[in-house]
Amino acid sequence: MPEKLSDLGEFGFIRRITSGLPPHDAVIEGIGDDCAVVRAGETVLLVTSDAAVEEVHFSLSLAAPEDIGWRAATAAISDIAAMGGKPLCLTLSLALPAHTPVAVAEALFQGVRAATEAHDTAIAGGDTTQSRAHIYLDITVIGTPVSRYVVRRGAQEGDVLAVTGYPGRAAAGLYALQQGIDASQAPWRELIGAHLHPHARIREGQWLAAHAAVHAMMDVSDGLLQDAGHLADASGLGIHLHSGKIPVAAALEQARPQLESSPLELVLAGGEDYELLLALAPAEAETLCRQFEDEFGLPLTLIGECEGAWRGLQLDGTPTAPKGYDHFR
Amino acid sequence: MPEKLSDLGEFGFIRRITSGLPPHDAVIEGIGDDCAVVRAGETVLLVTSDAAVEEVHFSLSLAAPEDIGWRAATAAISDIAAMGGKPLCLTLSLALPAHTPVAVAEALFQGVRAATEAHDTAIAGGDTTQSRAHIYLDITVIGTPVSRYVVRRGAQEGDVLAVTGYPGRAAAGLYALQQGIDASQAPWRELIGAHLHPHARIREGQWLAAHAAVHAMMDVSDGLLQDAGHLADASGLGIHLHSGKIPVAAALEQARPQLESSPLELVLAGGEDYELLLALAPAEAETLCRQFEDEFGLPLTLIGECEGAWRGLQLDGTPTAPKGYDHFR
Repeated sequence: MPEKLSDLGEFGFIRRITSGLPPHDAVIEGIGDDCAVVRAGETVLLVTSDAAVEEVHFSLSLAAPEDIGWRAATAAISDIAAMGGKPLCLTLSLALPAHTPVAVAEALFQGVRAATEAHDTAIAGGDTTQSRAHIYLDITVIGTPVSRYVVRRGAQEGDVLAVTGYPGRAAAGLYALQQGIDASQAPWRELIGAHLHPHARIREGQWLAAHAAVHAMMDVSDGLLQDAGHLADASGLGIHLHSGKIPVAAALEQARPQLESSPLELVLAGGEDYELLLALAPAEAETLCRQFEDEFGLPLTLIGECEGAWRGLQLDGTPTAPKGYDHFR
Repeated sequence: MPEKLSDLGEFGFIRRITSGLPPHDAVIEGIGDDCAVVRAGETVLLVTSDAAVEEVHFSLSLAAPEDIGWRAATAAISDIAAMGGKPLCLTLSLALPAHTPVAVAEALFQGVRAATEAHDTAIAGGDTTQSRAHIYLDITVIGTPVSRYVVRRGAQEGDVLAVTGYPGRAAAGLYALQQGIDASQAPWRELIGAHLHPHARIREGQWLAAHAAVHAMMDVSDGLLQDAGHLADASGLGIHLHSGKIPVAAALEQARPQLESSPLELVLAGGEDYELLLALAPAEAETLCRQFEDEFGLPLTLIGECEGAWRGLQLDGTPTAPKGYDHFR
């Protein structure tokens, strides 16, 4: 039997194909971060691509096409936020079956457009093609650093780990849509809104990147545990997370009786809220959290530490396998 | 019955969704040319996205995955050539079913990589996701103008139309693959090679853009007639093509007995050789053609004129509907 992608997993496949890529003058930071960092003349660019595939990332039975377009664009724009950048423009590739109603195709586009306008980004171009069976959106965003760009691999021994806002709400919102829970009532309205209509933390990312105490940053898109694992791997460190410190949104607590997983499990395994995860110099961490909350009315919560004596991820002192999304598995 | 994309057609759909897009500081030239032209700080960027979808653009039953990857990357890089630019880097989005053999997925990537190395372009990043049923590659290329960039809409009344090389060979090569014709024998080897392993006219495009006599340029990807129609539309002119002047490759003439269409029909309707189509100031046209041939050992052939008294496309004096590829129809 030939080896399948499902045997190797998403990250194994990426490691395999990218391990032999030669360096190139134009590429300052290549594959492995939220964005590539590219040199174009005198200008440094942040570049990221993000695909959304029907029946993998979204279903027209669970979300309106406007929301699907919004989420796809926001997911891509969030990678610029994760480096502390400013998005400039994006290209949109749309592949659609020929029998797709024009109204659905237009609404997908309008959703992308609404997200670009909300994040001061232009739709510069793209491609429109036929597909045989499913809708595919692929979005490439080009941005620039504002003060500096922050990569994943910058975490240092002794740094503390922090997360913005309340991850896990989008995962609960998706669960509510899948269960057909009435979306009009609290706490579901907030949770479903977090899933369908996320915002990229552009201003927050720029503010954080302007502080030298922020050593590493990424967005939470695959799940808090898995993404913390990526940050630990990239920095060659161990990350110790404390479940008691992880922020759980009030809406998620209210939803607990109807959830299949505990609120904490949703926060640990759920991504796609597009919150930011960062490693901070410990001496400045408390002050930075206070200033961040003053600036944005949003918590920046310390949830763990980076340790040098071991590698990987521990939750409450127990080694834990990163949980979260792996394509192909 | 709701209106379907197949009713509206690819270009009708693009017109509908893009007609209301607001201007944006970052976008110098938006949708409607081979590349978008984008301002990033002090740098001008050329940006283009091109998707290739299984069973629409390619089939694993007709081409090796390395060739599919090569063609997809070359098609995207060709849009940079069509503006006279230099490609810097690309991002690759790959969506694949989980049951895809790793060897197929790796070969697709290696084909993209080989094309980037042949065109001095870096793979800077991308995305890898699952799809339900088909393989989907989307490639976004970022480049920069070298002397200046050339758009489609610059053709002027009295300009002459010229094309590089011998379009139509790739269409004959695809036909040969579909018919199971033995690929090892002349003239099929050349024709199939033109289909499976095209090259983007990067050096040629830069050389042409450096000559002020070149008023408009684009690549031939949808078919010579259709692309000439796009150039006429963009410039608000009529284009008169002379079938007797259109260059037909010797290999295409040799293949005539086994072809379903005439060689000329393949040249007119076939795209994907990635030759360049341009409008030239008439006084300098003959000299430029000679210099081009001296420089590149490749013909630059005058095939028509731009006229101001009417709009659209005529072939040998008869109005003709652009033939070529329209997704959704």
